[in-house]
Amino acid sequence: MTTTKRYSIGVDLGGTNLRVALVSEEGEIVRKLKMSSAEQVLDSIMNAMKEIWQGDIAGIGLGVAGIIDRKNGRVFASPNLHAIEGIDLVREIRDRFHVPVMIENDGNVAALGEKKAGAGRGFDHFVLLTLGTGIGGGIIHKGKLLNVSAEIGHMSIITDGEKCPCGNNGCLENYASARSMIAKAVSMLEKETESLLKECCKGSIYKITPEDIYKAALEGDTLAREILRDAGRFLGVGLANIINIMSPEAIILTGGLIGTWNIYVQEAIKEASRRAFRELFDGVKIIPSSLGDDAGIVGAASLVFMETAEQPA
Amino acid sequence: MTTTKRYSIGVDLGGTNLRVALVSEEGEIVRKLKMSSAEQVLDSIMNAMKEIWQGDIAGIGLGVAGIIDRKNGRVFASPNLHAIEGIDLVREIRDRFHVPVMIENDGNVAALGEKKAGAGRGFDHFVLLTLGTGIGGGIIHKGKLLNVSAEIGHMSIITDGEKCPCGNNGCLENYASARSMIAKAVSMLEKETESLLKECCKGSIYKITPEDIYKAALEGDTLAREILRDAGRFLGVGLANIINIMSPEAIILTGGLIGTWNIYVQEAIKEASRRAFRELFDGVKIIPSSLGDDAGIVGAASLVFMETAEQPA
Repeated sequence: MTTTKRYSIGVDLGGTNLRVALVSEEGEIVRKLKMSSAEQVLDSIMNAMKEIWQGDIAGIGLGVAGIIDRKNGRVFASPNLHAIEGIDLVREIRDRFHVPVMIENDGNVAALGEKKAGAGRGFDHFVLLTLGTGIGGGIIHKGKLLNVSAEIGHMSIITDGEKCPCGNNGCLENYASARSMIAKAVSMLEKETESLLKECCKGSIYKITPEDIYKAALEGDTLAREILRDAGRFLGVGLANIINIMSPEAIILTGGLIGTWNIYVQEAIKEASRRAFRELFDGVKIIPSSLGDDAGIVGAASLVFMETAEQPA
Repeated sequence: MTTTKRYSIGVDLGGTNLRVALVSEEGEIVRKLKMSSAEQVLDSIMNAMKEIWQGDIAGIGLGVAGIIDRKNGRVFASPNLHAIEGIDLVREIRDRFHVPVMIENDGNVAALGEKKAGAGRGFDHFVLLTLGTGIGGGIIHKGKLLNVSAEIGHMSIITDGEKCPCGNNGCLENYASARSMIAKAVSMLEKETESLLKECCKGSIYKITPEDIYKAALEGDTLAREILRDAGRFLGVGLANIINIMSPEAIILTGGLIGTWNIYVQEAIKEASRRAFRELFDGVKIIPSSLGDDAGIVGAASLVFMETAEQPA
């Protein structure tokens, strides 16, 4: 008996970039592409797929930012990617390539990816948080993905806090994401606050990135340190809530903000340790992802090989 | 072949009362006892067990308020029942009765009970909330209990809110529980606020109950209405957070505050509908439990018959 290695294609439509990869059943990336997802999303996916297609493909898995209608293979709402709202993504792709097509939330597939081939391999019960422009999540329980929305970034931590584009008030994402850090930096600099950040970014404060803030903080800049610490403190409130509700063995953090770990995440851990039940906090490891940006494509591709996966109608 | 009906004993140590019942494998209560759990908890359990014991018992299931150390059959922390912290409850009971003994959190067993024989029978994925002196929870996913802490009452919804006895700040329980309602009523009456509540409770405002508040609210009392509505609004923040994270098919509410449904829970539903993702809110039914106070004993007893249940060491 000969066993042939099986492959699937993973598509990550989680952020501003579209990522597509050919992945083995074991979670090993054979080839990958990255492109802007700004417009013509469906055309971009179709072209990337053709370019990466190779031999027998068992199926295609999609990880998409937003609220997923698993039953019908649609995306209910994708606040950062309106272009795909309401499109019957699964049907369009299946009609073109004639293989099974699965769809999941981007945070959920990142959690799956880390479980399959990353920092989550050693844990049966963990929560993954994507810390970038927004904040997303995915939950692994007893080794399997929980089929839940896991919109952890849209948990309100300040009942009467600022309005979030999602409609809620005081969402974690409004206080602990890259978007919130940048908004605070710009607002403070517009008020003429003294800061090294004034000099960065080729003179335009509107191009500030979290990396700029982190760099300035390392140089001792007061505003930059305050921004990272404040965001970290709010992240800590979110971590404590997750710990008190989900009592995970690990929380795996991924996304662009991981680069600011030594201030932002350290502050979050300190805050969470003060807030969560002691016994639960002591049982959780808070660690960075090991796949980074590849977690989504690996996890999306793995949807195809999941026993319990149901293909949308 | 004859099949004999199997029975187990369920013990609910969730609130101020200790409840013990003989329950069939199908979740039917054969006999039950209720007594104060104020002191001598272990003796009370032992006596109740002897009184209720009948024929062949497959095992004993315990539902206990607090953070459970499932592996070792201990209770890490039980903020409202310090008497049992650190006691090796499982071993003590097993040594006396020589049957398997299981332990779970009280909110979790209540969720199991509603799934087995109550309002949760028709749902594969729901969250149960106990709304009483404190606020607890339990989560059913794909028809099974999630083995997580589910301390939903200790989710912070106001980052810099008032200190909770658990150590966190701004916990849901501080704003939406019976304890919080009563504290607010007392504090306002001490400030000489005009209210029908002054006349209630045999002249002692320190004996006010949520029922008194509800009754005064129905008679049009401004303070009473405000207390119930405020608590309901905060409960709504918690419900929205649960909906955004867990996307359940149902949220089942139980506990003493259910009696104030028409003001408190209605307000919560209104608030949650404003805050949660529309598509997720539209997919969730918010309903009262059907077993009420019996959910805990039924669920605790059912622990004994769960395939996946592991007996603590």
